[in-house]
Amino acid sequence: MKIFYLCSQKLNALMEGEHNLARLIREGNLRYLPHLSLDCVIFGFHEGQLKVLLLKMKHKSDWSLPGGFVAHTETLEQAADRVLNERTGLSGIFLKQFHVFSDLSRSDIPQTLSELRRDGIEAKVGDWLAQRYISVGFYALVSFSKVVPRADMLSDACEWRDLSDVGKLILDHNQILGKALETMRLQLNYQPIGYNLLPPSFTMPELQRLYEAILGKKLDRRNFQRRMLGFGILRRLPERKAGGAHKAPYLYEFDHEAYKRALLEGLHGGW
Amino acid sequence: MKIFYLCSQKLNALMEGEHNLARLIREGNLRYLPHLSLDCVIFGFHEGQLKVLLLKMKHKSDWSLPGGFVAHTETLEQAADRVLNERTGLSGIFLKQFHVFSDLSRSDIPQTLSELRRDGIEAKVGDWLAQRYISVGFYALVSFSKVVPRADMLSDACEWRDLSDVGKLILDHNQILGKALETMRLQLNYQPIGYNLLPPSFTMPELQRLYEAILGKKLDRRNFQRRMLGFGILRRLPERKAGGAHKAPYLYEFDHEAYKRALLEGLHGGW
Repeated sequence: MKIFYLCSQKLNALMEGEHNLARLIREGNLRYLPHLSLDCVIFGFHEGQLKVLLLKMKHKSDWSLPGGFVAHTETLEQAADRVLNERTGLSGIFLKQFHVFSDLSRSDIPQTLSELRRDGIEAKVGDWLAQRYISVGFYALVSFSKVVPRADMLSDACEWRDLSDVGKLILDHNQILGKALETMRLQLNYQPIGYNLLPPSFTMPELQRLYEAILGKKLDRRNFQRRMLGFGILRRLPERKAGGAHKAPYLYEFDHEAYKRALLEGLHGGW
Repeated sequence: MKIFYLCSQKLNALMEGEHNLARLIREGNLRYLPHLSLDCVIFGFHEGQLKVLLLKMKHKSDWSLPGGFVAHTETLEQAADRVLNERTGLSGIFLKQFHVFSDLSRSDIPQTLSELRRDGIEAKVGDWLAQRYISVGFYALVSFSKVVPRADMLSDACEWRDLSDVGKLILDHNQILGKALETMRLQLNYQPIGYNLLPPSFTMPELQRLYEAILGKKLDRRNFQRRMLGFGILRRLPERKAGGAHKAPYLYEFDHEAYKRALLEGLHGGW
C-alpha cells in the first residue's frame, strides 16, 4: 500500500477537504510541478532525548516524514514551509536543504499502479502519482517544548518519536532521515548548536546532553567542558544553578556575538 | 537571446548532431524530466590562481556554466557526470551537490517564448523549454593541469577563466557560481583541501597560495603555517626544495590517513 501512503501524505493541500485520490491523479499537475517532492526531517530536543517528527497515516502501520509537493508558483523553500505547516501545524521553522534524493528505485511505478488499482483508482504510467519523484530533503532542529504538532485530517497522529524508536518508515524515508542526521552530526564538528534549544542559561551537563543526544553517544565530561570553553562562545554567569550548595554547577549563557561569528566562520575561526 | 543560450547550452545530448531547437521543444520531454536542470561549477587551481570552467556559445557574448538536463533513467549524479563529459570532455570528476536553485525569476517564460519566436520557432507555455526550471548545483575542485577541456559543437570555446575575470554569465549563473564559492570557502574552515591539487610534495608557501586563491585574500605566513601544522595532516620531508641553499623551504606531503580522518571528522577532530 505504498502509494496510499504517498497519496495520503501529500494529498492535503490539493484536496482541500476531499479525500479523493482520483482527483489528485487528474489534477495534481495543475497545481504542482511533476516529478518533484520534498521531505522534512524535523528534529526536536527534549529532556536529553533527540526526537523526530513523524506522521502516522490513517489505517496504516508505517510512519512517514512530513512531505509534499512544490506548487508551480512556489520556491522550494516556500513549499517546504507550507507543507510543514499544513501537515504538522508548525510555522516559522528555519528549514535547510541538505540533499536531493534521486535514486531510480525510490519510485516503483508498476507497484504504484497496482496499489492504485487495489484502491479502485484507474491510473496509467505518467499520471500524477504514477511517476518518478525526485525529493529535496530539508531539515531543522527545533525546541521540542515550543511546538505542539497536530495531526491533519489524513493522519491518525503527528508525533515526536524518539530517534531510537523510529522503526521502518515508508519509501526511502529511513535513508532520508539518516542523511539528515549525518549532516547534523558533521555540523557539530564546526558549527555551534544549542541556541533556541536550551533555556537562556544552562549548565555544562545540560549542554553536554544535547551533544550526546545528537551524536548518539556518551562524551567525556572533562574533555567536553575544556573543548566547549575553548570555542569562546559561552559566558559563565556569576550565580550557580539554584540550590546554592557549594557543588552546584555553574550556569552559562551563549555569547551571541561570538555564537553568530562561529556560525559564519566555524567554531575555530575563519581564515 | 536568453533562450538560445539555454538551448545551446543543453541541446547537445538530445540533438545528437542536429542543431534543432524545434525538435528539443517537441521531444525534450521524451528523454528528460521536465522542469529540472543542473549546472556544474568546476573550479581549477593553477599557478596560484583559482579558475572556473566556462562555455562560450557560438555567436554569443555571455558565457555560461556547463549545464544540462536529467534523463528519465538517470540519477542526478549520473546526469551531472554525463553533462560535464558531453559539454567539456571531463570525466571521473567527483561532483558534489551544493544547492538547489528554485527562484521563480530564474525562468522568464514570456521572454523565452519571444526569443524562440525570434529564432523562428513556435512554442507555447508548457513546451519543453518554455517552462520553469529548478536547477541543482554541483561543484568540484580539480587539478587544472590534468584536464584539457574541449569545446563541443555548440560552443566556440570551453575554457578555464580566472575567477576575477568571469564577468556577466547567462541567467542566474553568477549567483550559482557565487554560492558554490561560498560553500567551498566555508569548507576551508573545517575540511582539508589540496590533495590532488598540489604535487605529491609541496612547500608551505605553495599550500598557502591554494588557500589564498580560494579565499580571495592574502593570509599571514606565520599564522598560516602554525595553524596548518596544528591540524596534524602534514608530514615534513627530510629533503628541502631543490636548490639546496640553507634558506630553501621545507617540503611537505599529506599524511593520507590523517587527511582522510579530517575529511570525515573535521580538521579539529570529531566529538
